Amino acid sequence: MAAAGARGGERRAEIVRAALEVIAERGYRGASLGAVAERVGLTQQGLLHHFPTKEALLVAVLEERDRWDTGGGGAHGGRRLELLELLVEYNAMRPGIVRTFSALLGESVTEDHPARDFFTHRYARVRADMAAVLRAEFGDRLPGGPTPEEVAPLVTAVMDGLQYQWLLDPDAVDMPAVFRAFLRLLGTR
Amino acid sequence: MAAAGARGGERRAEIVRAALEVIAERGYRGASLGAVAERVGLTQQGLLHHFPTKEALLVAVLEERDRWDTGGGGAHGGRRLELLELLVEYNAMRPGIVRTFSALLGESVTEDHPARDFFTHRYARVRADMAAVLRAEFGDRLPGGPTPEEVAPLVTAVMDGLQYQWLLDPDAVDMPAVFRAFLRLLGTR
Repeated sequence: MAAAGARGGERRAEIVRAALEVIAERGYRGASLGAVAERVGLTQQGLLHHFPTKEALLVAVLEERDRWDTGGGGAHGGRRLELLELLVEYNAMRPGIVRTFSALLGESVTEDHPARDFFTHRYARVRADMAAVLRAEFGDRLPGGPTPEEVAPLVTAVMDGLQYQWLLDPDAVDMPAVFRAFLRLLGTR
Repeated sequence: MAAAGARGGERRAEIVRAALEVIAERGYRGASLGAVAERVGLTQQGLLHHFPTKEALLVAVLEERDRWDTGGGGAHGGRRLELLELLVEYNAMRPGIVRTFSALLGESVTEDHPARDFFTHRYARVRADMAAVLRAEFGDRLPGGPTPEEVAPLVTAVMDGLQYQWLLDPDAVDMPAVFRAFLRLLGTR
């Protein structure tokens, strides 16, 4: 039983990785369960045994995002600016996964998209956590002048926006260098 | 003939507006020519008379973007920071059109997307124009310290990234106020 469970877990992880690839290529709306199944050598029926709906598979992919970008830093530690600098450097080495989530974020603003609530709540939480961490460290104003509540959405916007420019033209945009220039503006380094 | 040409031009503009709406709702990959035709009271065959392919219609939508965000400012004037502040305020009053282009930008990083070249070239041009304007005005460094070449991708990233957060949760994100906080960081106002 334990071995079967472990094999099932590996299989699920393999399916989630395949879904990440298919979404990077086609977006979520353009992705089909058949394409994901084919990539892992399952029938569509076999895939449905692990994920009963396309949305269930999307939820697993989005949960993977949270494991991915909170890193090992814990709930609050992951919002510290130095750790974000490392995260941006790390992301610059894995365009595939960045592409998946950039495509999903873009789609999420379209009507009734199943990832919309996920991103809305996630950003609300990220902004609140980051503002709290910055306020604890710097008080009412960062060295560069802005409040923690102004900086939190800005940091998030810079990370997301740079990813699009970098994915479109990786040779023209040095994502980690531009992000470091932004951190210097904040006056924290 | 002239009247027929004018009517044709109006009809095309009407179709482009309908396409903007359908893309805001479903993205480009999820949009169908049938849905656009229905919205303007044409058959799909009638629509094809104006735009022979779905991609031709996308090109018209993307050209509309350029009319939209260079505003009346001319090639370089539109990149000046004060004008961008006004543009962000203006955008905050029209979520529909912002949603269309945010959805298209997100999709553009997926494989073989027909808007990819448009966005790649557009961003290269925007970064180059903006850096040139900033360099002419401020020299090697903006008052806040960064170079014009660092600021150009940052401004673009902040505008794009804030649009996603604002579209997802307009009550939580005061897009113009956060953008002004960013301009204050640059030390130019």
